[in-house]
Amino acid sequence: MNEIVMKPIGWIETPFRTREEIPFPPFHPDSPYRNPDVTGTVHILEEFREGIADIQPGSCALLIFYFHQSKGYRLTTHSPRREGVVGVFSTRSPNRPNGIGVTVVRFLAVDGCKLTFRGVDMLNGTPLLDIKPYSEEVLMV
Amino acid sequence: MNEIVMKPIGWIETPFRTREEIPFPPFHPDSPYRNPDVTGTVHILEEFREGIADIQPGSCALLIFYFHQSKGYRLTTHSPRREGVVGVFSTRSPNRPNGIGVTVVRFLAVDGCKLTFRGVDMLNGTPLLDIKPYSEEVLMV
Repeated sequence: MNEIVMKPIGWIETPFRTREEIPFPPFHPDSPYRNPDVTGTVHILEEFREGIADIQPGSCALLIFYFHQSKGYRLTTHSPRREGVVGVFSTRSPNRPNGIGVTVVRFLAVDGCKLTFRGVDMLNGTPLLDIKPYSEEVLMV
Repeated sequence: MNEIVMKPIGWIETPFRTREEIPFPPFHPDSPYRNPDVTGTVHILEEFREGIADIQPGSCALLIFYFHQSKGYRLTTHSPRREGVVGVFSTRSPNRPNGIGVTVVRFLAVDGCKLTFRGVDMLNGTPLLDIKPYSEEVLMV
């Protein structure tokens, strides 16, 4: 298998226009993740609407998206959590092969093709590739 | 953005040749996830080897892969956890738009371009798209 072609199922509206505005990860005590006023909106394309019919406000999910503003990748990078140079697959750097981002969010409201959520850490206009259910149970090894 | 082209960074060797052989999710008490003898091996392409340099045996990670054997998608499906028909984005069905799979694994050993892991739930020969660090801390909302 050489190439895999994907098409967005929607896009994500967020308050962040540049990478610098995006907050530190959620475990950082200053993170706006802790601020319920920072929300984003998933806009699902009409053709995929049936697929979100069972998403409930209050539930968590994984948003799987594409780092559309990243220019290429670096196999080694810097991490805010570790000193020195780190292999990219030990980090959440947006400059990675295939440019896939994964973030846990909590849905606050569902209105037709729009899903409002908390836990925003992506740029405005980010193409959405998938939504998956998330619970600690599901992801436990 | 219409089309996004991805290329595998490697592939996953597993004991599972058909979908029927794949165990229930990890929270199922009969799941072979609980059996440390069921392991898989990530084979990273040589060109991406530098990116896994900091992956440590014993650590957890998200494997992000492609459901290469799935034929198309259905927006509504059945879930082993719920009765009736369910929107695909509330399930982990492999028949989903863009065919992306995400599984938490625990690495047992690192040997050059090979990473042995526990938590196998994908078919043998699965194309690997990405590896991301995983900890409950990182994924908490």
